[in-house]
Amino acid sequence: MSSLASAPAFKPFNLALIQLGGVGPNKSENLKHAREMILNAANGNSGVKPDLIVLPECFNSPYGHAHFPVYAETIGFRHDKPYDVASSPSESVKMLSDAAKETGVWVVGGSIPERDPSDDKFYNTCTVYSPQGKLVAMHRKVHLFDIDIPGKITFKESETLTGGNTTNFFDTDFARVGLGICYDVRFPELSMIAARQGCHVMIYPGAFNLTTGPMHWKLLQQARAVDNQVFFSMCSPARDMSAGYHAWGHSMVVDPYGTVLVEAEEGETILHTHIDPKPLHDARQGIPVTTQRRFDVYPDVSK
Amino acid sequence: MSSLASAPAFKPFNLALIQLGGVGPNKSENLKHAREMILNAANGNSGVKPDLIVLPECFNSPYGHAHFPVYAETIGFRHDKPYDVASSPSESVKMLSDAAKETGVWVVGGSIPERDPSDDKFYNTCTVYSPQGKLVAMHRKVHLFDIDIPGKITFKESETLTGGNTTNFFDTDFARVGLGICYDVRFPELSMIAARQGCHVMIYPGAFNLTTGPMHWKLLQQARAVDNQVFFSMCSPARDMSAGYHAWGHSMVVDPYGTVLVEAEEGETILHTHIDPKPLHDARQGIPVTTQRRFDVYPDVSK
Repeated sequence: MSSLASAPAFKPFNLALIQLGGVGPNKSENLKHAREMILNAANGNSGVKPDLIVLPECFNSPYGHAHFPVYAETIGFRHDKPYDVASSPSESVKMLSDAAKETGVWVVGGSIPERDPSDDKFYNTCTVYSPQGKLVAMHRKVHLFDIDIPGKITFKESETLTGGNTTNFFDTDFARVGLGICYDVRFPELSMIAARQGCHVMIYPGAFNLTTGPMHWKLLQQARAVDNQVFFSMCSPARDMSAGYHAWGHSMVVDPYGTVLVEAEEGETILHTHIDPKPLHDARQGIPVTTQRRFDVYPDVSK
Repeated sequence: MSSLASAPAFKPFNLALIQLGGVGPNKSENLKHAREMILNAANGNSGVKPDLIVLPECFNSPYGHAHFPVYAETIGFRHDKPYDVASSPSESVKMLSDAAKETGVWVVGGSIPERDPSDDKFYNTCTVYSPQGKLVAMHRKVHLFDIDIPGKITFKESETLTGGNTTNFFDTDFARVGLGICYDVRFPELSMIAARQGCHVMIYPGAFNLTTGPMHWKLLQQARAVDNQVFFSMCSPARDMSAGYHAWGHSMVVDPYGTVLVEAEEGETILHTHIDPKPLHDARQGIPVTTQRRFDVYPDVSK
């Protein structure tokens, strides 16, 4: 983890969210389609190529606690040592690394079920790749999705998964980008910490559902964006009513004022957005909450 | 301050917000009108009497940093010792105490400019009264409203005011109620601390404006309500386009799912709401974020 002082300058960049459809039981097919969509996204929008492409949560496997152990792969990446993708046993890591390298674009690889052989536990894990195909960052979902709204939705990730225990970001040449996965967004601390560590943009692959989606998907992103004066974006799978889990869709990008810059419907699509640093700087100058916090009255969660 | 274990059980109650109009330069007139509106509010809605009445921010004075020292009163209350309202030199305290006692209703007395003779500083201060007229709690606005959005609004409370340095709540026989004032809502920590200390309801007298109101007034209340699974309510002055500061109005009450239970327009009005604890318990059971926080990964700001 780099220090605040080492954060890159925030420069304009182009972001592409892949609201991936057609994720089914065949992992090879899932990876093939995800790769095709990365290549499609890299073609850009009206000739404008993206600098960063994002996949949704659980893009190589059906979403459900029974599926996670079956689809889990060993990644092997550690934050504290150099890592060679060629040594990874994960076919998903290989595909993502190759796609990043082939397109020359940063890739936030949504998430995949991960098995860590060192503790024999399973995680819901996001991996990030540089345009050279290097695996540069990883985030294991910290807050597991265990909810029970009677008659609406019951889900218990903790049946098979373990929560991660680190907060994570990565540096590009245009921004510092904070990571989280889906249910992590309900816990304000992760974004508070990331923003105070210098993140300009938060990317959360996620898959809300038809109950929590309409209630909170947009609200939570706007809240994190406004409170921390950062860009906030969640990338969902497309909705598939024949699947076991019905994702909300509505991938979006929210600016530091809470304005929704772009929002998908529920079907498969690629959302292209130009991220201009200006609203971040304007918001922080006009409503300077980032310098008005009262850490003499309450602790700073980032310290 | 009481401990979490001592928090009262959350019971149904009726809340009345006074979106007060006609606050002008004459303090006596302001107090007289506020008193009349408290008596009106206490008459209730269709025969249902409120248990708690709330006034807006700066209800006895025009809102502006030049006005605060002119209208400031010495309150004298301290959290750490018994307090006799009869000994207060503040005419606003006397009016609020008398009105609470006369109506037999809890009163959150919006806020008034306060001068503390012990440090010769000025504060933006909320006082709270029991149905017996006892002054039981006080909150000095912690985060001063210093913003500068060019061409839209520039305001600098810190020209004359000092920020408080405590978080505050009070206990009734139906709920533990957390306090904040206006700009405090932009800082998630106050609500996080209050909710984790057992508050069921947050009351923030406030006066957003025609720039920040449409952007963030509702969003911030919904965010605090959903993140902490509490009821959240801000009570604004009515809008007066002949005044120096144009308040947004739109006083509202939001439930723990983020649903707006009631919302005013911009004119003077009294909003009556029935607060049912059920959505708080349902939200906390269905989406149990209050027990899923990862204080092994980040610190608990309430500790």
